[in-house]
Amino acid sequence: MYIILVYDVKQQRVGRMLKLCRRYLHWIQNSVFEGEISEVKLAELLSKARALLDEEEDSVILFKSRTQQWLEKQVLGRERSRLDNIL
Amino acid sequence: MYIILVYDVKQQRVGRMLKLCRRYLHWIQNSVFEGEISEVKLAELLSKARALLDEEEDSVILFKSRTQQWLEKQVLGRERSRLDNIL
Repeated sequence: MYIILVYDVKQQRVGRMLKLCRRYLHWIQNSVFEGEISEVKLAELLSKARALLDEEEDSVILFKSRTQQWLEKQVLGRERSRLDNIL
Repeated sequence: MYIILVYDVKQQRVGRMLKLCRRYLHWIQNSVFEGEISEVKLAELLSKARALLDEEEDSVILFKSRTQQWLEKQVLGRERSRLDNIL
């Protein structure tokens, strides 16, 4: 499946959340990640994110699409990170 | 179509970008919006965003899905804004 993940976490947890998400997905913008991921890997990522989050203060939102083909991406202005130089 | 819009713009433009996006989409998290939108309204939003952006410094990324049904949303932690209290 293909996912978009956005997070809004308190300053003291941003570094660890960034590091965690980078291990599973591509960073594309401040607090925004995208990428192909399996159910098993996503479950792993989410359990680690839950362990890290403060459920009262922090927020992580995921949008899951069955395939990347169902999502058309468009960028205005600067593209912070080019996916093709990572793959 | 259903879209997810994320922006990363310089501080001096954040207020105007927030105001602009709020007229077309639902704010769900810091710099993150989602919502149903027509091609015409999206074209309108993007032309206004382009007029506001500094293409060298700012970044807006959109993910378009043909329908909301093709996107499964999951929230960890606090849901900043509940869509149902807006509709």
